[in-house]
Amino acid sequence: MVKAETSYAGDTQLEEALRAAGVTTPVDAVRELVAGVAAAPDGYEDWTVLVAPKADAALRSQLNALRAEIVVATDGMFPYGPAPAERLSALQAELTRRALDGFIVPRTDEHQGEYVPTRAERLRWVTGFSGSAGVAIVLTERAVVFIDGRYTLQVLDEVDTDHVEPVPLADKSPWDWVAETLAKGATLGYDPLLLTESSVSRYRKAAEKAGGSLVAVDDNPVDAVWPDQPAAPLAPVVVHDEIYAGDSAVDKRATLGAALVEENVAAAVLTMPDSIAWLLNIRGGDVPHTPLPLSFAILRDDGSVDLFIDQRKLSPGVTEHLGNGVAIQPPKDFGQALEALGKGGRRVLADPTSAASFVFDRLRAGGAEIVNGTDPCAMPKSCKNDVEVDGARAAHRRDGVAVTRFLAWFAERAPAGGLTEIEAAEQLRAFRFEDDLIRDLSFRTISGSGPNGAIVHYSVSEETNRKIGLGELYLVDSGAQYLDGTTDITRTIAVGEPSPEMRDRFTRVLKGHIAIATARFPQGTTGAQLDTLARHALWQAGLDFDHGTGHGVGSYLSVHEGPQRISKAGDTVALKPGMIVSNEPGYYKTGAYGIRIENLVTVVPCDDVADSERTLLQLETMTLAPIDRALVEVSLLTDDEMAWLDAYHIRVRETVGPSLDTAAQEWLDAATRPITG
Amino acid sequence: MVKAETSYAGDTQLEEALRAAGVTTPVDAVRELVAGVAAAPDGYEDWTVLVAPKADAALRSQLNALRAEIVVATDGMFPYGPAPAERLSALQAELTRRALDGFIVPRTDEHQGEYVPTRAERLRWVTGFSGSAGVAIVLTERAVVFIDGRYTLQVLDEVDTDHVEPVPLADKSPWDWVAETLAKGATLGYDPLLLTESSVSRYRKAAEKAGGSLVAVDDNPVDAVWPDQPAAPLAPVVVHDEIYAGDSAVDKRATLGAALVEENVAAAVLTMPDSIAWLLNIRGGDVPHTPLPLSFAILRDDGSVDLFIDQRKLSPGVTEHLGNGVAIQPPKDFGQALEALGKGGRRVLADPTSAASFVFDRLRAGGAEIVNGTDPCAMPKSCKNDVEVDGARAAHRRDGVAVTRFLAWFAERAPAGGLTEIEAAEQLRAFRFEDDLIRDLSFRTISGSGPNGAIVHYSVSEETNRKIGLGELYLVDSGAQYLDGTTDITRTIAVGEPSPEMRDRFTRVLKGHIAIATARFPQGTTGAQLDTLARHALWQAGLDFDHGTGHGVGSYLSVHEGPQRISKAGDTVALKPGMIVSNEPGYYKTGAYGIRIENLVTVVPCDDVADSERTLLQLETMTLAPIDRALVEVSLLTDDEMAWLDAYHIRVRETVGPSLDTAAQEWLDAATRPITG
Repeated sequence: MVKAETSYAGDTQLEEALRAAGVTTPVDAVRELVAGVAAAPDGYEDWTVLVAPKADAALRSQLNALRAEIVVATDGMFPYGPAPAERLSALQAELTRRALDGFIVPRTDEHQGEYVPTRAERLRWVTGFSGSAGVAIVLTERAVVFIDGRYTLQVLDEVDTDHVEPVPLADKSPWDWVAETLAKGATLGYDPLLLTESSVSRYRKAAEKAGGSLVAVDDNPVDAVWPDQPAAPLAPVVVHDEIYAGDSAVDKRATLGAALVEENVAAAVLTMPDSIAWLLNIRGGDVPHTPLPLSFAILRDDGSVDLFIDQRKLSPGVTEHLGNGVAIQPPKDFGQALEALGKGGRRVLADPTSAASFVFDRLRAGGAEIVNGTDPCAMPKSCKNDVEVDGARAAHRRDGVAVTRFLAWFAERAPAGGLTEIEAAEQLRAFRFEDDLIRDLSFRTISGSGPNGAIVHYSVSEETNRKIGLGELYLVDSGAQYLDGTTDITRTIAVGEPSPEMRDRFTRVLKGHIAIATARFPQGTTGAQLDTLARHALWQAGLDFDHGTGHGVGSYLSVHEGPQRISKAGDTVALKPGMIVSNEPGYYKTGAYGIRIENLVTVVPCDDVADSERTLLQLETMTLAPIDRALVEVSLLTDDEMAWLDAYHIRVRETVGPSLDTAAQEWLDAATRPITG
Repeated sequence: MVKAETSYAGDTQLEEALRAAGVTTPVDAVRELVAGVAAAPDGYEDWTVLVAPKADAALRSQLNALRAEIVVATDGMFPYGPAPAERLSALQAELTRRALDGFIVPRTDEHQGEYVPTRAERLRWVTGFSGSAGVAIVLTERAVVFIDGRYTLQVLDEVDTDHVEPVPLADKSPWDWVAETLAKGATLGYDPLLLTESSVSRYRKAAEKAGGSLVAVDDNPVDAVWPDQPAAPLAPVVVHDEIYAGDSAVDKRATLGAALVEENVAAAVLTMPDSIAWLLNIRGGDVPHTPLPLSFAILRDDGSVDLFIDQRKLSPGVTEHLGNGVAIQPPKDFGQALEALGKGGRRVLADPTSAASFVFDRLRAGGAEIVNGTDPCAMPKSCKNDVEVDGARAAHRRDGVAVTRFLAWFAERAPAGGLTEIEAAEQLRAFRFEDDLIRDLSFRTISGSGPNGAIVHYSVSEETNRKIGLGELYLVDSGAQYLDGTTDITRTIAVGEPSPEMRDRFTRVLKGHIAIATARFPQGTTGAQLDTLARHALWQAGLDFDHGTGHGVGSYLSVHEGPQRISKAGDTVALKPGMIVSNEPGYYKTGAYGIRIENLVTVVPCDDVADSERTLLQLETMTLAPIDRALVEVSLLTDDEMAWLDAYHIRVRETVGPSLDTAAQEWLDAATRPITG
């Protein structure tokens, strides 16, 4: 995180400093660029190279001060709580001006990712709702916001329910609401850049069922009434070194191009920035916690790529790295390029579940024969190569040291009383940031004690921060982005003496965790097939948890990555060697405590079964930190389960121990002694 | 089974006898009716009531003799082995006459069921292939038959490979073959009554990809060249008593009609005879082993039904049972009725995965707005009411007695040597047929010893019949149709001393079986989620089985019923109370032996878990017969697994024991003693 140490001295001074550094860019253009940088989260990379590759300390300081000034202004845009009512009425007036009866305001951006840049926080700007998923439908006289089970309480604090009516998605889907509510003859607008093709077709059906119609708009009416809307983010794009990527971008492009030839497809449209980052071995920082360079791309069957990205955010050397096979184009030309692509009815691949309907509209306008299919990067990206898997192992060894140091510190500090959730999260962050390869946390740390631990997606804030008490459980779910790998680990720790119920529940969760960790399964098995193993011991006691057992994880990319996952949803994607997924069963008692045990695992061949008749796979646990022995009810474990736990603890001790100081080492020795010892 | 004891005396004598019995039907019409009866399998019901409700023994005997004469003629139509080559060439000549370049000959009939009447065995008549699934594509110069893994060997014995080329479905789908093989401009014909809507659309795409076209024919060209094609079957339709059905047909119609109103659908098209049988509380006998009255129906939103069925097959009293709400129509009027149904653009429900494309064609022709959805009978039919579940329990108790008697007999007889698979199956059948409520076996008994046991869908014949040897495993999978329930059970028995490997494999299969039998799971859980529990112990040793863990079972209906099942295919149908499914993990060692342990289970609430936080369900095992203790490797079982096996055996002993003779009882006592005893 780069903080401004000085205050901004003014444009004249900046102009002078720039000239001195040999930069000829006009100061207005520099201001625009810095506004883009300010619209991205704080990042690790030095962004000032985008302005002045050879800036001295004074100039860097001035640039950072300018950025800080803009950031402060942006922060004021999102007060905690309901958005000012005039925003909604301004939008409604704008709709009337455009002869629209309503407009769909999703939380998504053009790339349908989990994190969006500030510029795309239209839902929050209009309503105040800051959740990571949701959609508002604004009619001229009325507005509703649809939220999922995680946000039923939060939404009441964040929106003005006099003007915006919250609707739980469990009660009604937005399309059903539209079908029932839209007036006959009414027009419902949407931004084709913000909704997927499949989403639009559901809204269209609903609007037509109501006797109305769905209308695409060319420019977003929210943007029209949001005067100080932040710029598109311009975090520096950097090269992701082949020593981490394990394969050159040139080779990846060639392989994928050849696959398109095989499928008789002329080109594939890539709209997911993590696909583009993977394919081109680049990383960015446009959204929090995920090194994404927001961009679009077209991959052609000859392996060449058109990359639609703001050239200003390319750090020195990136253009050379990309090479001749990658043409850099301004994002505004993406639509035209899609139209041109379809000329002559060429077959073009696009993914209706992730690509904006805009992509399909423009392809169709150009005459393309659209082939609906999965993003061709998804599968090779998810099956990590040996270098990436080795990198992940190394990242987990170092992450394990940081987490174990934290656990030792916590074991010492917490029982004394007074430790808060925020302090604990900050200490864990500090241990992690001692590593040279760390670039960011991989998501906002979930640090929840007692009842807060039972909130699955808890995000600690000044308002909710608790002191961690004796007799409570503390749940910490955290991870980091290292150049060589992305981590994600959850540990649940008893502070003082846990209750028998807590031990029973923890042990059932542990049994599920071990069942996944030790499962062997034939090639072709899906994560959906494994999911039940994680729940069986809970089910037998009438318990369960309401989230997936595991999500895919990227290689210094998204901590939530598809298509692999372990979930009861009936996926058809088989687990393949090199895929990384989390193994994180849990149990949550509302108002009391939460339990989750999470390690990342990677799919590897299993060659050690004599007389095996099938090609077997298994999951190698990569995460290395002790599991709280005080919470294990030994009588519930089988001999095999005890053996797994003891062997895991020996591995943690042997791998992580040598990097600890003596006190932490002693703590670890005790924390990893045999479970029956 | 009704056998003719006399030979047919001639039409004149028959005419006289009919007149004496007060029957005025002309003898030609009687002959036609008997031909229909002869086209159905041997059945339990007295079909002669269809001709002469008050026939005396002499007349019944004459009628049976006439039927027997026709049956013999039909049997000659299907010699074992390749069909006479002139059938294929006659069909090819017919195609040329009709200016078709090819024709699709599926194994299915108009109802897409598992069993088809003789008349519909077009695939077998043309090629000789008698498998239960498959499709031929006959071009004017060439023919191929697509078969699945079960039939790769059998097809070589049954088709003339000089003229018909077998293609494993694993290598190529029929649509891919069409896309690659059909000539540009060529026309490929199909019978819209025999292919589903979804199947037709795949063939159409394939034909168009090849530059050809897919053409519906009005009458099937195979029928045109099959001079002695059997009639449509006319097995007697009888009332299924409410003491077994548990609910009146009037109530069922009213409930389903109301559900259509709810969905704003004017009518639903029913093409599955088991749905119609369930809805109207009737049963028939048109196909083997399943009491189906082949027919179509239209259910309207007022609960009334148009039943398209040959009136001649209705036994006395059925029309009265059906009542005013059910209009009986000739099958030939079905198409017109579909067209009429759509008038005014009414919304009509049809199931694209089970209804013939003919249904959609005619609905569209009439202007209907087609609502694609599941057959509305499917879900209520699968969730048996209390009377049906109690009936199934009772049927299983009696079936358990028959099976246990067989097992005791087998234990005595088999080790002496010389016993054949056919003899064993016949003895089992004989024990079952001592019951008053039995009507049929529920499928052809699988009676396989040694290597034959490893053939999952083994069907014993004179050619494959083996003597059951010492040191072998014997697998018997069988079931019966009782008025109060359908059964299906598999037991695997060691003859003499089993090998350690057999015991290891059997015990792993048993562990899977017990995991399903003891699973508790939250409401909403699908069979797909449970499937893994049945495989886990096998996977850990590198083993698996290549079939589903469980199929749905009807109530005196199909032994294979949807939508419920336990399968790794990612189903989204939740298991609901009253559903009956099989629990049948297995293991197969090709060329050596097969193992399968199958009980039927029904989904029931689970209320005995203290502090349960979820609405729990579990599976009640209904099948009652001992599991071979000699094959259990006790060291592989957990204490809980041993407890389950012992408790199950006590239940078998207490329930079945009292109905056995002393010798069988003694055997059962030994066979059900504690596993560690």
